[in-house]
Amino acid sequence: MIYSELSTPALLLEKEKLMANIVRMQDSADRLGVQLRPHLKTMKAARAAEALIASGARGITVSTLKEASYFLQHGFKDITYAVGMVPTKLPEVASLMARGADLKIITDNLEVARAIATEANQSDTRYKLLIEVDCGDNRGGLQPESEELLLIAGLIENSAAEFQGVLTHAGHSYGVNNTSAIEKIAELERDAVVRAATRLRTAGYEVNTISLGSTPTALYAKDLSGITELRAGVYTVFDMDQQARGVCETDEIAMSVLSCVIGHNKAADKILLDAGGLALSKDRSADKFRPEVGYGQICNEDGTAIPDLYVTSVSQEHGHVRVRDVNDYALFPVGSHLRILPVHACMTAAAYDHFNIIENGVLSEKWDRVTGW
Amino acid sequence: MIYSELSTPALLLEKEKLMANIVRMQDSADRLGVQLRPHLKTMKAARAAEALIASGARGITVSTLKEASYFLQHGFKDITYAVGMVPTKLPEVASLMARGADLKIITDNLEVARAIATEANQSDTRYKLLIEVDCGDNRGGLQPESEELLLIAGLIENSAAEFQGVLTHAGHSYGVNNTSAIEKIAELERDAVVRAATRLRTAGYEVNTISLGSTPTALYAKDLSGITELRAGVYTVFDMDQQARGVCETDEIAMSVLSCVIGHNKAADKILLDAGGLALSKDRSADKFRPEVGYGQICNEDGTAIPDLYVTSVSQEHGHVRVRDVNDYALFPVGSHLRILPVHACMTAAAYDHFNIIENGVLSEKWDRVTGW
Repeated sequence: MIYSELSTPALLLEKEKLMANIVRMQDSADRLGVQLRPHLKTMKAARAAEALIASGARGITVSTLKEASYFLQHGFKDITYAVGMVPTKLPEVASLMARGADLKIITDNLEVARAIATEANQSDTRYKLLIEVDCGDNRGGLQPESEELLLIAGLIENSAAEFQGVLTHAGHSYGVNNTSAIEKIAELERDAVVRAATRLRTAGYEVNTISLGSTPTALYAKDLSGITELRAGVYTVFDMDQQARGVCETDEIAMSVLSCVIGHNKAADKILLDAGGLALSKDRSADKFRPEVGYGQICNEDGTAIPDLYVTSVSQEHGHVRVRDVNDYALFPVGSHLRILPVHACMTAAAYDHFNIIENGVLSEKWDRVTGW
Repeated sequence: MIYSELSTPALLLEKEKLMANIVRMQDSADRLGVQLRPHLKTMKAARAAEALIASGARGITVSTLKEASYFLQHGFKDITYAVGMVPTKLPEVASLMARGADLKIITDNLEVARAIATEANQSDTRYKLLIEVDCGDNRGGLQPESEELLLIAGLIENSAAEFQGVLTHAGHSYGVNNTSAIEKIAELERDAVVRAATRLRTAGYEVNTISLGSTPTALYAKDLSGITELRAGVYTVFDMDQQARGVCETDEIAMSVLSCVIGHNKAADKILLDAGGLALSKDRSADKFRPEVGYGQICNEDGTAIPDLYVTSVSQEHGHVRVRDVNDYALFPVGSHLRILPVHACMTAAAYDHFNIIENGVLSEKWDRVTGW
């Protein structure tokens, strides 16, 4: 592989692996009989969204309103913004809807719902709301049995805004490392959001969307009866965190950081790379099950993982690699390229404004990405 | 404080605190009788460089060649790129020098020095080289007694490139939390780089630059005899990592992230913010001495630190704040603003392309920043 046209650190994406991962998840959604609404928080790239939609996905999920604006600009209209709404962001939502976005927003808070209802009544904007449900992740969301669930639906239904349904995310599926544990969490995720939907329907509200998902539960759920859509993101490229949890194999990881060996500190038994905490992120999610992974798995420049070689520590622009033995200095001379499989792809990719695509073993095009807020 | 014009998360910079921090470090350099060459890896902002130079700094340090290009474009010519050079980056260095940069590069590797010498001989570019010395940090750098130190100087002196001197960085000063321990590391830092310079001079080489620095050692060194210049960066804004080590007070921290409360998960005893792992970074440097700080210290929107309230965990776009008691829900309603003092300012700032400046208690201008590579 020749990378002479790239300055390091640089973000690489292997297209064949990306496409295989996309197919794997689409097959999972098809098997489970639900619509796939991929989360673009990982890829943040219009070209990736095109590939997802072409493979059968319907609609997209985003993590920032800037992503919503970027994808709208690239022709993607059916968008769910899956982070809790606040009243100060409603003008931005209204502006996106005025530009043609079929934008769904979420909340778990009665006061926010009241602000949305009021704003809808006073304007021409028919905000579309999903209520966030907590299925055990303990991040955002109401308990399925909560009083507020019905109060929020009632507030919205009696306003010019539109009540769309319920949404949950089993983030705690990242806390286990075997598929039978993931299957159990997938069942709890389904159960929580279906219970919430059933309570709402019993109370007389129409519930069109019953949405759930995380990469582990989306791949290993046995049954999604009652669910309308699946959301997941990191599966597109996977990472060492997912590998450590048994969700993917190392050679399915489609994203890597190209770096250059900038020094040998033989007194400290280290190879130094020009990819540090900014180029890789300081995410240590793989620690729970594979602490040896550190800040990333080292690969040769062709992408083959090198056994027992990891980024062991980082400073801002330096990656420190503890050598296995003195032969590593000759194997990896100063100036040579190494690739790093990230611990957490979403965090790593965020530092880059484009992907460098590898296709048929050679660098092909660049895919732009959206960053920031 | 009114932030209605800002979408959250947003990066804030208090100008009065920035200026006080700049003065504090300049006073330290003046007292020690050395030139201050601030490291712009933290600020990455031309307006900050202007303030530093106006306060007495001479020359700047950068962590990427993109920073070098950005600062050159803004009129800053005297630049040291303090990350190990590799042969593939020499064309970029030559291009910067052709544009007028007085750019110094570093290496600790004989083969890289050979490539620099060869390239200088074959081109019109008079590369300026500093040799990196390891003073105990165990990152980059040669041991002061190493054979290669003299070999590299010899190679460069016998080429069309220019040998400038030696440089070290006591990154391990971040590993202690009291000023007497910092003083000792500062002495070891000085000793290592002066020993290297003395060996080079004894061997007949001219050593014009003897450079060292880290924020802790730069502020607490007792004596810098033999040193010509001091480099440091994070002192401009400080952060909770520096506070945890006793290097600054909480109210000297000039940078913060403005965030919005997006939810109350009362079942999980949590307030949720719209500043998560991307907005704050996943750096946990403060853990060693103040693990309770987590991902940041929470402040009111006027910047006053709130006792015992921290960002306890993060996901990509969510900050989780464990409440002290149920009264916190009323104190911090959904939709209200909170500010977060970062754990590691360099890592946090990297996610943003501008600072929102607060001056005299009100939002004034924006300062652009350079990001990426």
